[in-house]
Amino acid sequence: MNYAKKSLKIHQQLGGKIELGLKVSLKTADDLATFYTPGVAEPCREIAKNKDKSFDLTWRKNTVAIISDGTAVLGLGDIGPEAALPVMEGKGAIMKAFANVDGIPICIATKDVDEIVKLVKQLEPTFGAINLEDISAPRCFEIEKRLNQELNIPVFHDDQHGTAIVALAGLKNALKLVGKKIEEVKIVFSGAGAGGIATAKLFICAGAKYIIMCDSKGAIYKEREDLNFAKREIVKFNLKNEKGNLQEVLEEADVFIGLSVPNLLKASDIEKMAKNAIVFAMANPTPEIMPEEAKKGGARIVATGRSDFVNQVNNALVFPGLFRGILDIRAKKFTQEMFLVASEVLANFVGDQLHEKKILPFVFEKGLAEEIDEAIKVLNCEKK
Amino acid sequence: MNYAKKSLKIHQQLGGKIELGLKVSLKTADDLATFYTPGVAEPCREIAKNKDKSFDLTWRKNTVAIISDGTAVLGLGDIGPEAALPVMEGKGAIMKAFANVDGIPICIATKDVDEIVKLVKQLEPTFGAINLEDISAPRCFEIEKRLNQELNIPVFHDDQHGTAIVALAGLKNALKLVGKKIEEVKIVFSGAGAGGIATAKLFICAGAKYIIMCDSKGAIYKEREDLNFAKREIVKFNLKNEKGNLQEVLEEADVFIGLSVPNLLKASDIEKMAKNAIVFAMANPTPEIMPEEAKKGGARIVATGRSDFVNQVNNALVFPGLFRGILDIRAKKFTQEMFLVASEVLANFVGDQLHEKKILPFVFEKGLAEEIDEAIKVLNCEKK
Repeated sequence: MNYAKKSLKIHQQLGGKIELGLKVSLKTADDLATFYTPGVAEPCREIAKNKDKSFDLTWRKNTVAIISDGTAVLGLGDIGPEAALPVMEGKGAIMKAFANVDGIPICIATKDVDEIVKLVKQLEPTFGAINLEDISAPRCFEIEKRLNQELNIPVFHDDQHGTAIVALAGLKNALKLVGKKIEEVKIVFSGAGAGGIATAKLFICAGAKYIIMCDSKGAIYKEREDLNFAKREIVKFNLKNEKGNLQEVLEEADVFIGLSVPNLLKASDIEKMAKNAIVFAMANPTPEIMPEEAKKGGARIVATGRSDFVNQVNNALVFPGLFRGILDIRAKKFTQEMFLVASEVLANFVGDQLHEKKILPFVFEKGLAEEIDEAIKVLNCEKK
Repeated sequence: MNYAKKSLKIHQQLGGKIELGLKVSLKTADDLATFYTPGVAEPCREIAKNKDKSFDLTWRKNTVAIISDGTAVLGLGDIGPEAALPVMEGKGAIMKAFANVDGIPICIATKDVDEIVKLVKQLEPTFGAINLEDISAPRCFEIEKRLNQELNIPVFHDDQHGTAIVALAGLKNALKLVGKKIEEVKIVFSGAGAGGIATAKLFICAGAKYIIMCDSKGAIYKEREDLNFAKREIVKFNLKNEKGNLQEVLEEADVFIGLSVPNLLKASDIEKMAKNAIVFAMANPTPEIMPEEAKKGGARIVATGRSDFVNQVNNALVFPGLFRGILDIRAKKFTQEMFLVASEVLANFVGDQLHEKKILPFVFEKGLAEEIDEAIKVLNCEKK
């Protein structure tokens, strides 16, 4: 049976993938008096005196709201909040299975930036952290920025930062294998949405100096007047202010990062890249170029978003451990520094298995979330 | 150890009472491909074609949002959304333990009626039903009314209807024992908040004709100009338009229903009631009059909200089964008819155990939620 059919069947049988779990038993009058009235009044009173106690005495301690308006779901696009639910349930299930974080899906019936910001602020008292998910660019940038300013709990946009962290880890390992340095390589991006922008920014934090980003109209360069604020931040890394389409600027590039649409490139395009080319074709479910085709064009290392090829760039490698860490240290914000640390953990986790066909851990390797959690804790101690 | 101390200790140890539960296992790449990408795209596509499928294919099938602004929590009052969380977690835990309903706490940082209505509408795509909880009167009436008009999923306010249903069940059985009819008795209410108003209304649906409601200023009568719309609906049941304070209008009353504040009445007040007086003193945690004192005044049947006295009027007797039923029949609204049916199930459940000290089932009696569920289903079939 293929995955689509099997998935539909099980979703139907079970009515979704997640449910409420109980940490306590409710079988006797004594249980009820302890966990409900009259006993429950005591933790309520403690929190009423000091709201921060809600992070000790309630599920806030371990809970992340997974917020989506359903506008940019997988490769499916703007399918609405109801249709986004299976993905958000999956996200919650992954958080729980990989890092014992309680991820609660919240799919919302508004696309308005102000409304979304207001709604998440109103939900703040219930959750320990916020994960924004599958919200289309450029709205997602403003929503994340404003929430980070206005909330006292950390806000993460997985499509941006999850992707960026895993891609950076993969790139670091790929560069080790080909003997190049991030400071020196020419990197060409296809895709200036949430994932592309955040990945470029994290690469820059990690030392990248030469990045040409392409959107659907080709390379982003200084004179273009149609750039949103997010794209404008990246444009100065187009060092020679190159113009032209993706194929043109790809010439002599060391690295291709695709976070855009299927089937953009051919082997002949990859041939124009520098020697030992690194190709991350991460469009889902169909990459910008299939691995075989990229190899035919001379790419030395190829990664995609897919589990059926080697070198899968999969956000699930990082977000469970990262949320575990931020909840454990109870930080109020995520930082680029945390993202760099998580990326370093991921890259190092591969260890002596490092190989052109294994630049990233597999998602089921034991101890990954724990190591990310640990690294976030160490970073937090160093800060203090 | 007392319940307060024990409750606080366990909340601290566990970090709340509820967590995310998984219905599927995520242990292999195959699991991930089935329940997450690429397989998950299929249920997403199905729902995108027809939103109603979200009630089959996601947790909506079984999920209730428990919404509170923390303004009227237990006997604690307006303690804020964070401090309300332990109660809402408890509510969710009870739904799960008693009726396998997934109740998700959502405590919100706004008290504005328009904002609350808007927020719940925005959350609608995520949930199968809404339970409003511990929202102060009279705002709760307007919020519930507007949500019932504007949402396509059922909305319940437990402090109103849960209380009303259980109180009516208790009253029916008490009246059987004393040989009086609901149509003929004089009923005096203390408390015109959410619980009082809804209970009076359900009593009226069940046939009550003679109700005098008192608020903090005494009896509600026609000429009073300070009545909100909710109180105004009840005033015509003050048949003789009696004025005066609670003690005064209690004269010759057959039934006292207290949903107000502690220690309002003395034995001498009960003495003025009719013979075979029924006293439901449900203020929490301290009743309007303690059972012993009411008995001293001649009350024949006494009920309270407390688990440490006989005849506990406890909403947990009804809301789990009622939500089980409404989710199972997938109705878009709760109706007074459903409430009457649930009340009848509760009253009959006592069976031949009926006694002055047992007018209601105990909350842990097996099969209660199932019987309410079944009765809602039967009602639904009769309607079709």
